Amino acid sequence: MREFSLIESLTKIVGSPSQRVLTGIGDDTAVVSPLSAKTLLCSDAMVENIHFDLQLTSPEQLGHKALAACLSDIAAMRGTPRFALFSLALRPGLGDEFISGFYRGAQRLAGHYGVDIVGGDLTRAPNEVFIDVMLVGESQTPALRSTAQVGDLLAVTGTVGTSAAGLVACRKRLQGYEPLVHAHLEPEPRFDIVTLLAQSADGLVKAMIDISDGLSSELHHLAHQSNVGVFIHASKIPLHPLTVQLAGSTERALPWAWSGGEDYQLLMALDPHHWSLVAHDPIAEKLTIIGCVVEASNGLKVQNLDGQIHELPNQGWDHFATNP
Amino acid sequence: MREFSLIESLTKIVGSPSQRVLTGIGDDTAVVSPLSAKTLLCSDAMVENIHFDLQLTSPEQLGHKALAACLSDIAAMRGTPRFALFSLALRPGLGDEFISGFYRGAQRLAGHYGVDIVGGDLTRAPNEVFIDVMLVGESQTPALRSTAQVGDLLAVTGTVGTSAAGLVACRKRLQGYEPLVHAHLEPEPRFDIVTLLAQSADGLVKAMIDISDGLSSELHHLAHQSNVGVFIHASKIPLHPLTVQLAGSTERALPWAWSGGEDYQLLMALDPHHWSLVAHDPIAEKLTIIGCVVEASNGLKVQNLDGQIHELPNQGWDHFATNP
Repeated sequence: MREFSLIESLTKIVGSPSQRVLTGIGDDTAVVSPLSAKTLLCSDAMVENIHFDLQLTSPEQLGHKALAACLSDIAAMRGTPRFALFSLALRPGLGDEFISGFYRGAQRLAGHYGVDIVGGDLTRAPNEVFIDVMLVGESQTPALRSTAQVGDLLAVTGTVGTSAAGLVACRKRLQGYEPLVHAHLEPEPRFDIVTLLAQSADGLVKAMIDISDGLSSELHHLAHQSNVGVFIHASKIPLHPLTVQLAGSTERALPWAWSGGEDYQLLMALDPHHWSLVAHDPIAEKLTIIGCVVEASNGLKVQNLDGQIHELPNQGWDHFATNP
Repeated sequence: MREFSLIESLTKIVGSPSQRVLTGIGDDTAVVSPLSAKTLLCSDAMVENIHFDLQLTSPEQLGHKALAACLSDIAAMRGTPRFALFSLALRPGLGDEFISGFYRGAQRLAGHYGVDIVGGDLTRAPNEVFIDVMLVGESQTPALRSTAQVGDLLAVTGTVGTSAAGLVACRKRLQGYEPLVHAHLEPEPRFDIVTLLAQSADGLVKAMIDISDGLSSELHHLAHQSNVGVFIHASKIPLHPLTVQLAGSTERALPWAWSGGEDYQLLMALDPHHWSLVAHDPIAEKLTIIGCVVEASNGLKVQNLDGQIHELPNQGWDHFATNP
């Protein structure tokens, strides 16, 4: 009766669901109250030895990060997350302890954002752990990737390249880079920004995307889907001081920002008029302008630290790059 | 720009979404209209060399089956499926052709049931293909596992053990067993039953569960969650004639029914009074009574073909049985 005890132990970790949950973990499906706003649906998969290394991360941290990555997509839509499902495939050598730790880490983050973990699937795998998180959220006014316009400003939250630098510090077991390691292992989705945006002027954000595969990749997505070009000032890209210290220079740190991925910060196109109106709002302190939206015919350009202007390569981490 | 062309090719395969889809594949999340009834959420994971063998199944059949398995959970809740997300992790050696075939198979089934494929995730894996399907459905009156009562009749749809027999025929490349092989490779979720139930007397179905891990496992789930016992007549269990032929006898075919799994038929507890009222309805022809619900203190019992009464072991396929 292993499965029953496992379900009961997971139900205990997940705790009491909100009133939105009519039937939680344990039936053929979860049953939840219908949402009233536009409904957001996304999923995010992680594979051992591609996305994570169990030598470097604890099950709790993995549960946190798997959920955080998917939550970040909801944040990027200006949404509120509601329900989560987890599918786990476990390889030999990992058992109840791993599952419990994973769910504890996920539940801590889920609880923080009022998300109910309502179900999923659990199976075995021959060689690597596989994790898939599905989220259901809602938003009155979802922020898309396809609605940036020429003249918009481009802004990012927090710092970028931090997660990639943290991975390096983590692998080399370097001391003194804890903030980077923390950003890599336990990223925080930027719902604080979503909240501030809701309190700020309507019409500020024209388009938004989260930075999961690296800044260059996300800029290409935004430009492609909005049918625009971009012009970026490399010198404006916000880097954590420890990232620069670890790299040895800003120039050597920038590749982490362009293509490191997993920062889970937000990249947004801002209406310039509205931006001038919020200059003294709390939101202004949280955003860094890195460039602007230009005509599609101008392409995607970056002015490097040396002042030279180059094409912005699509250097984001292509999950298929090594596939034939 | 590989990812863009892939997204565009998938968007083409998936075709025009329904009016429920406000933003489909390609943004941070899908955006769909809110549902009006109780919302059903489930996920179903499949791993290569655990759940399927690419020597025996085509990408199209795999896309069909992955979706069918998850759809069956929605059917078991007396639900209507609406939106699907697919997360795929592909190993080296599989590329665009596999992805396109997989999505074609999934889309054919999704289209048949009015399901919109709205997104998902695509990544790589070192050794095995991982597939996770997540579904959103709705139901005015979800049928749970926990509401069977003493005195209810137990019924199943179709035949059971058919998929397991089909797998044997498939592996041995036997001729003449095509219906079994088809049931194994391309199972059909029983929404025909859900439709007939909706046209029949209210109150007929007291509890329902789909048969994904084998009849004995599902009976244990139903009994455990409803806090009841069951009494099953092995001689009543509906087997496909070809299953019996392949096994050599009914007795030798029964283990496939008990623990083979992947039949995606429905097991239900029926109100005996309502059952007598629908005896001449089309639904009656689709169901086979295999036993009844008894007091929990009587446990789970089966009367075998020889007339002897035994405990019903929990022989369903435990996905963790071989994990430490």
